[in-house]
Amino acid sequence: MEFSSKLLEKAVNEMAQLPGIGKRTSLRLVLHLLKQPKEHTGFLVQALTSMREEVKFCVSCHNISDVAVCEICSNTKRDHQIICVVEDIRDVMAIENTGQFRGIYHVLGGKISPIDGVGPSQLNINSLVEKVKTGNVSEIIFALSSTMEGDTTNFYIFKQIQDCDIITSTIARGISVGDELEYADEVTLGRSILQRVPFEKSFKG
Amino acid sequence: MEFSSKLLEKAVNEMAQLPGIGKRTSLRLVLHLLKQPKEHTGFLVQALTSMREEVKFCVSCHNISDVAVCEICSNTKRDHQIICVVEDIRDVMAIENTGQFRGIYHVLGGKISPIDGVGPSQLNINSLVEKVKTGNVSEIIFALSSTMEGDTTNFYIFKQIQDCDIITSTIARGISVGDELEYADEVTLGRSILQRVPFEKSFKG
Repeated sequence: MEFSSKLLEKAVNEMAQLPGIGKRTSLRLVLHLLKQPKEHTGFLVQALTSMREEVKFCVSCHNISDVAVCEICSNTKRDHQIICVVEDIRDVMAIENTGQFRGIYHVLGGKISPIDGVGPSQLNINSLVEKVKTGNVSEIIFALSSTMEGDTTNFYIFKQIQDCDIITSTIARGISVGDELEYADEVTLGRSILQRVPFEKSFKG
Repeated sequence: MEFSSKLLEKAVNEMAQLPGIGKRTSLRLVLHLLKQPKEHTGFLVQALTSMREEVKFCVSCHNISDVAVCEICSNTKRDHQIICVVEDIRDVMAIENTGQFRGIYHVLGGKISPIDGVGPSQLNINSLVEKVKTGNVSEIIFALSSTMEGDTTNFYIFKQIQDCDIITSTIARGISVGDELEYADEVTLGRSILQRVPFEKSFKG
């Protein structure tokens, strides 16, 4: 792509560093900003800068937060004995949206993935193990995605806490609500049969 | 969407103002920035700010430029008698990429579109008409997209310059190179038959 302006080129190239944004999309976005009043770019730039500079992570669960201890961890109405282990803060938001979970979270910040060079030491695993060993935790719910990396991470954590006297569980895998059976993959369908639930319980939630 | 941080929420909302970027995509982009070193956000913010503040538009063709007269307009090797009228600077880039055009451009900055509240006065039409009436222009090539708005804009400009002694043309409409006839729409296929070209000429370009 040939640009008639170095400034434009630089802006497009920087924007194209974002995941899923190619050069063409980037150009469209940047030209949109150019057509808008200057304040619009100012607002965006300001919001990004202060977010990146000032945002904090909860010292307890590593969720994103504006204060040292996030709202969920400091909420005394929640059950602090049940910890849901998730990969990143998007998962916290997703589970919070369901309104079905009243415990607290622990954000790992990723999954163990040797291919991507992510080992256990880069994730917030130690603080979780410590929490389990020292605190009054009754249950750990693994809510990582059901991939090889997710399973590896689950297993790595499980190994470290298996001697503790707590319940460990994973979220249920099965056919999505509303999905047609014929389009489900074999593994999911197989699991959903093996891990079938009593009919009376299936109405809940 | 419930955010655990106001800073994050603000950044996501600002990013979601960009065209084609929804809240979810915006969140993904912002979280990506959070995972990267702070400099990455700095570079992006810096590039956007200086682009928005310092970028200029060529006084002659209204193309984006770092200097008062853009490279194309100041290039004496190009044919300044042939002006290609385009909607925005992306079209300039697209035509430049073909390497088939050696004239200069005139960027309108949009199309006449009453529905979107865009009238002729908001576009760079007057400067084009003036250029045609005073300068030594031999040909105007309309290269707007072939929509109702594009055709309206073409016609509006044509009406104003039809008394001048110049050639006016539009870019050819027809079946795309490599396209299957059966998938072409009727209007395009119809035009491509009406405006057929001599076989010997069809090899060119």
